[in-house]
Amino acid sequence: MKPRAAIVAIGSELVDGRLADTNGQRLDPKLAGMGFEVAYHVCVADRLPDIVEAIRFAARRAHVVILSGGLGPTIDDITRDAAAAVAEQELRTDEAALAHVKMIFDALGREMPENNARQGLFPEKAVGLPNSRGTAFGFRLDLDLPHDGLTSRIYALPGVPHELDAMFDAHVAPQLRMLAHALGAPNFSSSTLVVFGMSESKLDAAIADLCRDDDPAVSLNVRDGTVRITVTASGDDVEAATAGARARADAIAERLGRRVVDRDGRDLPEVVADLLERTGTRLAFAESCTGGMAAALITRVGGISKSFLESAVTYSNAAKSDRLGVDPGLIEAHGAVSAEVAQAMASGARIRSGADVAVSVTGIAGPDGGTAEKPVGLVYMAIDASPKGGQPFTEVIERRFGALARGGHGRERVRALSAMTMLDRLRVWLEDRLAARSDGGG
Amino acid sequence: MKPRAAIVAIGSELVDGRLADTNGQRLDPKLAGMGFEVAYHVCVADRLPDIVEAIRFAARRAHVVILSGGLGPTIDDITRDAAAAVAEQELRTDEAALAHVKMIFDALGREMPENNARQGLFPEKAVGLPNSRGTAFGFRLDLDLPHDGLTSRIYALPGVPHELDAMFDAHVAPQLRMLAHALGAPNFSSSTLVVFGMSESKLDAAIADLCRDDDPAVSLNVRDGTVRITVTASGDDVEAATAGARARADAIAERLGRRVVDRDGRDLPEVVADLLERTGTRLAFAESCTGGMAAALITRVGGISKSFLESAVTYSNAAKSDRLGVDPGLIEAHGAVSAEVAQAMASGARIRSGADVAVSVTGIAGPDGGTAEKPVGLVYMAIDASPKGGQPFTEVIERRFGALARGGHGRERVRALSAMTMLDRLRVWLEDRLAARSDGGG
Repeated sequence: MKPRAAIVAIGSELVDGRLADTNGQRLDPKLAGMGFEVAYHVCVADRLPDIVEAIRFAARRAHVVILSGGLGPTIDDITRDAAAAVAEQELRTDEAALAHVKMIFDALGREMPENNARQGLFPEKAVGLPNSRGTAFGFRLDLDLPHDGLTSRIYALPGVPHELDAMFDAHVAPQLRMLAHALGAPNFSSSTLVVFGMSESKLDAAIADLCRDDDPAVSLNVRDGTVRITVTASGDDVEAATAGARARADAIAERLGRRVVDRDGRDLPEVVADLLERTGTRLAFAESCTGGMAAALITRVGGISKSFLESAVTYSNAAKSDRLGVDPGLIEAHGAVSAEVAQAMASGARIRSGADVAVSVTGIAGPDGGTAEKPVGLVYMAIDASPKGGQPFTEVIERRFGALARGGHGRERVRALSAMTMLDRLRVWLEDRLAARSDGGG
Repeated sequence: MKPRAAIVAIGSELVDGRLADTNGQRLDPKLAGMGFEVAYHVCVADRLPDIVEAIRFAARRAHVVILSGGLGPTIDDITRDAAAAVAEQELRTDEAALAHVKMIFDALGREMPENNARQGLFPEKAVGLPNSRGTAFGFRLDLDLPHDGLTSRIYALPGVPHELDAMFDAHVAPQLRMLAHALGAPNFSSSTLVVFGMSESKLDAAIADLCRDDDPAVSLNVRDGTVRITVTASGDDVEAATAGARARADAIAERLGRRVVDRDGRDLPEVVADLLERTGTRLAFAESCTGGMAAALITRVGGISKSFLESAVTYSNAAKSDRLGVDPGLIEAHGAVSAEVAQAMASGARIRSGADVAVSVTGIAGPDGGTAEKPVGLVYMAIDASPKGGQPFTEVIERRFGALARGGHGRERVRALSAMTMLDRLRVWLEDRLAARSDGGG
């Protein structure tokens, strides 16, 4: 039997409709990758007796229990109290944790508020876990609630996702790998393919036969048109596990061809930024319906100022003409949402910015503004390139995201998919450019 | 004490990283609105003993347990088996449920596969709940696992969100309203304040004394600098509950003054869009480090094209000069990240776009590019206004988000906080403008 883990997310916002827990989902594949079977996720409000019972339930049924949230300075933050109650220990001040909070307030040039001293309180026998991203130290505590005759171990981590991720990776994961090994779990390795522009059902039809085994196990995660395919394999040693995962990932990638954005788990903006830099390509955008989302995506990547010049977010028709030189007559004749205007926006953006390539978008994001002929979700994108030493290239893409546009989040989904589709088309062009240069240059 | 509810979501995809449970989040406010306190959400894989234990845990601690998922026809779908095991009942065929499945296959012109007959199997004493959206009937089952001396009641609902929602609203909600009434639940009402630009600890210090009661209860939710403060009060009738929640929310708003973005739960982009429309103000942005995020935020709001003209996302220095008319000498003298350049970007954006007000931003988002004098996280924002019939106004804001900028997500946090701060400064200016016009116009 595999070693077992459970995740307890603490916070009233998780059970009153304000927020869905997402920490559990991010921890699941990491735990699975170490050989743990995740038995339960539990969400519980900031009420001491309920948290105590949730921790007891989890600790009696799993070797490792990960708590997230409730480590802040306010009176609502009572994870430390609940852990102490379950362990039947008193709280005491952990000097390192307290010094860390003080240091952050010092750096901000502010006095530490009195209630932040609570963030230094841990159960007596707890061991602190440093937080590189915020004030709240986490802690580890071994509990005398045995599961399978072994002491259960709990880790209390902050609820803020990027703080939790950093603490888990730096301090918890190494300990858990050793624990999994001690509990007899085999070695696991994972490989992640990133795919864009295929529906889950199309993807399923294409690769279902490669996803049926328990080992290597294949799992899919879909978000905004991007699918992350994670292949996890076991082996007698890490090398064998890695080879097993890689072989299956390669077989899947073979089937999916150009839809594969990356074979190493990088997302689309990162891959595009890397290709821009490797090909020495300078980029501009011209955005209407996405309202700056394409630029916001690519500028997530640090150091992108080497390649990315500007985006003209031309929401009004006047801005399209004044900023990009789109002929007002063209807008009048074809409408602002048309292949012709998309094309004129892209070439205008390229020429005016001096970029090697420009990508434009114009569409009807909704919820209003659609017609029978041009429904909500209709989007035109154009790519226009004239790189130094390369072939001029231009193309217009039409997409109808209408089926996705229904419901309250439809507008945001149309916009996000449009921005991602722009980046994906650019990726394919950049890959071609890189390949052409390699061919040409030997 | 309030009647209590728990939600158990069943499915391996919920604990292996493929999916985050969202059914719980949608049910939470519905249950709270009936007077139930949601004690737990539990997610569990498709493993019989684990599901049995999860149901037992929940049923011993809540008057009502809602199960979602695991009612399909495949061998993985074992919610019916788990419920029968907890209730110590046999499974038997529910003729209405089976006839429903057969009818759907008839309508599709297909033979019912043999394993779909499983969808007619319920624990002996269960009562079926019709499904208007799919094949799976749900069921209700009263369990002999008393909580507070009362029999716990479970509802098993399909996991597909729109099927669950329809079944809950049509068949479960009416029964639960009666149960809540029988258990003596009062009426509840909530009021939500949205606040920007205060740390959680400062907020806590300002309003802690107003947040200590159980009724009205006050809860805080923080994200990207925005705090949502939800006040929930009970009353003999809905009017009394609403008045109680509103009175406490007003007392909190009084303390926080201009930090309050909205008293009705609307977020910053919505509030700004509304103020722009009510004041007839036309807006432009000039963005460097945010790379289009401010424009992306405001264009989330449908119909914003009436007020929002454009954003110049001028990432390179050349773009700042060419697009906004920023003097290259100014950039050379003070650096692209400076109060002077922020100011020039804003006035350039306003004049060139013809907008009434422009807001600009330039900063060092990191992770590289910082110096001792201008560290990562230093951001300058400027607002420049010259509205028709109003006073010209200009202001530069300096912020140091440095303490937040560390680590892998620091860049994204600096950018998001900068974009939100731009909108918030604009909100305050628009509120002043609205107030001045009201004063002037009588």
